[in-house]
Order: sequence, then structure tokens, then C-alpha cells
Amino acid sequence: MDPLHWWGNVALTMLEALATAAFALSGIIEATRKRLDVVGVGVVAFLTAFGGGTLRDLLLDQRPFFWVREQYALAGVFLLCLIAQAFMRQRHVAITERMIEWPDAIGLGLFCASGVHQAHLLGMPPLVSIIMGVVTAVFGGVLRDMVCNEIPATLRNHRPYAICALAGALAYLALTAVNAPAWLAMVACAGLATSLRALAILRNWSLPIWRP
Amino acid sequence: MDPLHWWGNVALTMLEALATAAFALSGIIEATRKRLDVVGVGVVAFLTAFGGGTLRDLLLDQRPFFWVREQYALAGVFLLCLIAQAFMRQRHVAITERMIEWPDAIGLGLFCASGVHQAHLLGMPPLVSIIMGVVTAVFGGVLRDMVCNEIPATLRNHRPYAICALAGALAYLALTAVNAPAWLAMVACAGLATSLRALAILRNWSLPIWRP
Amino acid sequence: MDPLHWWGNVALTMLEALATAAFALSGIIEATRKRLDVVGVGVVAFLTAFGGGTLRDLLLDQRPFFWVREQYALAGVFLLCLIAQAFMRQRHVAITERMIEWPDAIGLGLFCASGVHQAHLLGMPPLVSIIMGVVTAVFGGVLRDMVCNEIPATLRNHRPYAICALAGALAYLALTAVNAPAWLAMVACAGLATSLRALAILRNWSLPIWRP
Repeated sequence: MDPLHWWGNVALTMLEALATAAFALSGIIEATRKRLDVVGVGVVAFLTAFGGGTLRDLLLDQRPFFWVREQYALAGVFLLCLIAQAFMRQRHVAITERMIEWPDAIGLGLFCASGVHQAHLLGMPPLVSIIMGVVTAVFGGVLRDMVCNEIPATLRNHRPYAICALAGALAYLALTAVNAPAWLAMVACAGLATSLRALAILRNWSLPIWRP
Repeated sequence: MDPLHWWGNVALTMLEALATAAFALSGIIEATRKRLDVVGVGVVAFLTAFGGGTLRDLLLDQRPFFWVREQYALAGVFLLCLIAQAFMRQRHVAITERMIEWPDAIGLGLFCASGVHQAHLLGMPPLVSIIMGVVTAVFGGVLRDMVCNEIPATLRNHRPYAICALAGALAYLALTAVNAPAWLAMVACAGLATSLRALAILRNWSLPIWRP
Repeated sequence: MDPLHWWGNVALTMLEALATAAFALSGIIEATRKRLDVVGVGVVAFLTAFGGGTLRDLLLDQRPFFWVREQYALAGVFLLCLIAQAFMRQRHVAITERMIEWPDAIGLGLFCASGVHQAHLLGMPPLVSIIMGVVTAVFGGVLRDMVCNEIPATLRNHRPYAICALAGALAYLALTAVNAPAWLAMVACAGLATSLRALAILRNWSLPIWRP
């Protein structure tokens, strides 16, 4: 493997690890707020970090699951729980929450790209590929909120989140339709979803309420 | 294909489309009531319309999912969301809710018949086939209520719903046990479930509360 | 089969039936408390009894599901619902709840052992086997509480439950790592998880709250 390719892979793996950690931390914070016990906090962290990819693999009938192939991710989230338990104090929660918005946006893009790409490779039709991209990106957060007995924030808080993943997935399909190489389509997908989410945070964009 | 058969297929497809639209609309109404944003309303509409059949395919290990084979259904629900967003106003909600009770009853019968028939074809034992019929018919609504942070109405509101599907599934199995042709068993199943549900609505039947 | 082996199997089957009944009863009690109707109570009983094993089979891609192979369990839970409906009165609930704590602890151990053993047989890595053991043991209860619109008690009530299954799963892996026979590892797993849970009940152990 040439050095450039190798460094690209290292960068991608580090981004993925960062995004997974951001998802897990959002689970830890939500579970703490609900006063779960230590086991509950760990379970919610795992569900948030791995829920989206697991549903993708389940729906696309891909085995072994990605967290069976990449066990270091499981171990990493476990470690993160221990570290958060040891060092995270009440006064850190608000800071952590603001800080993880950015790696979370990166995760939104990366996971969406992985979902839409995998579905496309398996020959799924466009509409299904889009759904897989969005599901991979947002289902972890949906599961977190369902377990914590909340209506999923993604569906309710009028901040653009799932819709950024949707835009990214559309970009992927548009590029593959004109025979762009897969890596370009994936970069465009992840880039667009992440940038839109970042803009939505910075500009405080808001989705219209459904006002019937 | 002879004309009669062809018209039969057209009628069935139209009934299915009607029933799917009724399920999706019940999702839209519930999500609107919970003040979800536009993305949330769309997600709940999809979950309600496709949740039951997806769980059936998942449990019976049938791939591709029915909504991968029949993508027009996905596109149709998407269109329905756009139309509902554009035209449905507050004063329409109560009317819509009463109007969709009937296509919803048709969906209960059709989806139950599809579930029990598919399980039976795969050689599942009777008890499992019954469960598959009921799951296909009611799980969409259960998922809708779980995401909207409610105890599923089917399990709580003391109106016969799942139990109508149960009766239909039993009719299917009784008929196949005496070697009736599959189409007859399916028609009897869908007909019985739908009629019982319709009677339950008209006569205001109520299930006994579990009073321990 | 020699008599000893035969009696061992009979004892195991009886323990499993006892544990499944305990899980189903906990579902019945929770559903009654939430004032579900008779159909709802039955559904929650089934979800609690079979949810954990179903998720295990789904994640490990094992078909047919264990409740397809062992239909008497389905029929048994159905019977149990009828009996409970006929005979359980309000004054029995508290007694039943205290009585089922013990067969529930047995179920925790047995289901954990079945999950970790099945995953290990399929060549899953240690971390994944542990997760499968814990999921099999606790997911039924998690599902029960999610459907009843509660934060899962296992994750919230600061009583050791999932963590007992975790300890059992670790014991299984430690023993197989030193080439102990599978039956010994399974007995140790079930025994440790059940004893820890029993001690937690008797001594009123409590997990630390996550106090950030």
C-alpha cells in the first residue's frame, strides 16, 4: 500500500473512532440525566454507538456484524465508559455536550456514507439505499431516546439532523448515477451531510413544525 | 392471464395501497399530535406503514424485504406525506381519523392474511403462523406508539384489534387443515379479521380489562 | 441414554420451564399494573418470556427461532396467561412478585449460559459472546418495560441484575479458556449468575448511581 493510501486509512479510522466516541458519549450523558445506574449507562452508551450500524447490517442481512469484525470498537466504548465514570463530573456535562456536537456531525456523515455505500454495493434500489444511509446515521440516537423513555430528539426537536443525512445520501446516488468513482461519492456524501449539520448548528437552523 | 384473474389482482393491489395509506396516515396523525417536526412525521409514517411487514420478513428470514421488491409503496408513502403536509389542516384531523378506520380494518385483514400465509408456505407450525399473522397486522401500530412514547394503543384501549387478526389467522389454519385451497383460506382470513374489526367499530365492542 | 443423563435433562427442562414462567409472570404483572387489556397482557407476557432468546437468535442468525423448535413453550405461556386471568387476584400480585424473584434468578443464569454457549459454539470472539449472554438474559425484561412505556428497570433501579449475567458469562469464558468441558463452563456460568442475583436479593445489594 502506498503511503498516501495508508495515511488516508489511518485518518478514516481515527475519524470513525472519534465519531463512535461522540455517539457513545451522547448516550452516557442522556443516561446520566435519567439517573440510570452504572450498568444502564453502559448499555445506553453501547446502544447509541452501535445501534445504527447494527440495524443496517440486520436489514441488509450482513453477517458478521461490523462490531464482530471490529472488536476494538466494543472495547473502546467500554473503556470510554470507565473513563467517563472516573473523570466526568456534573460541571463537565454541558461542556461535553457542546464539544461532542462536532464529532457527532462527523459521525452523521461517515455512518450515512457507510450505509448508503453498503446498500448500493449490494444492488439495492436507490430509495432503499437512501433509507439505509439515514438509518445507519440516526438509529443509534433514536434507540438511545427510546430506551430512556423519550420521543427521539431527532424526530422532535426541529433541528436538521436526519435530513442532513438524507441530503448526503442523495449526493452519493447522484454521483454514482453519473459513474463517479465510489470513493468520490462517499466523500461527497459524508462531506455534504457533515457540512449541512455543522451549518445547522452554527446558524441555528430550524425545521418547520408540521402545523396541520 | 384471464381477465377475471387480472381484475382480481388489480383489486387486491388497490386494496393493499389503500390499507398502506391508512396505516401511514394514522402515523402522520399521531406524530402531528406529538408535535414532531416534518422529518419526524415522515419517519413515523414509514414505521407505521412498513413496520409490521418488515418484522415478519425479518423473523421469517425473507430477503429482500417486501418494500425492496415493491418500491412504489415506499414512493407512495413519501408522496402521501408531502400531500398531507400541504393539504391537511387541523380541522381535518378528526375527520381523517374516523375515515381511516375502514381502510385500516381492511389492512388488518390483508396484512394478517399475508403473514399467516407466508409463514404457512415456509412450513412453520400452526402456533408460529398465527403469531406471524398477528405481528404483520399490528406491529406497525405498536412501533408507531412506541416511538411516540405511548403504551401501544392496541394493547391498552380495550378495543378489539389484534384479537380480530387472531381470529382471522385461526380461520386460515382451520381451512388449510381441511385442505381448502390457499386462496380460499386467505380470503376467509382477511374477510373474517376485517369484518370482526368493522363490527367492533360499529357496535363499539370492548375487551374486558384484566382485573386481577 | 443412561438414567442419570435422562434425569439431568428432565431437571434442566423443568428449570427452563420454571424460569420462562417466571419471566412471563413478570410481564403479566407489569402489564396488569399499566391497566392493559387482556390482549395487551398476553402480548407483554410473550415479549418478556421470549424477547431475549429471540434477539439472541436474530443477532447470531440462528433459524428457526428457539420458540419454533420448542413450541410447547409458546403453548405453555398461553396457558399461563389463561390461568393467571382466571385465578390471579389483586391480593396475589405482591406475593407473586416476591415469589417469582427466585425462578427469575434461575432464568437469569440459564438464559445467560445458553446465550454465551451458543455464541461461543459459533466461533464468536469473547467480547461478543459475553454480550450475547447478557442480551439473552435481560432483553426480555427490557422489552417488557419499553412496551409499557417505562425506562427499563434493569438499567435504572440500581439492583444488580445484568451485571450478575456479566459475571456468569466471564466465568464461562474463563473456564473454556483453560479447556474445561462445555457442560462445566455452562453450569458455572448459570450457577454464578443465579447465586450472585440471589445474594443481591437477600443482602439488598445496590449498584452505585452514576454520579457525574
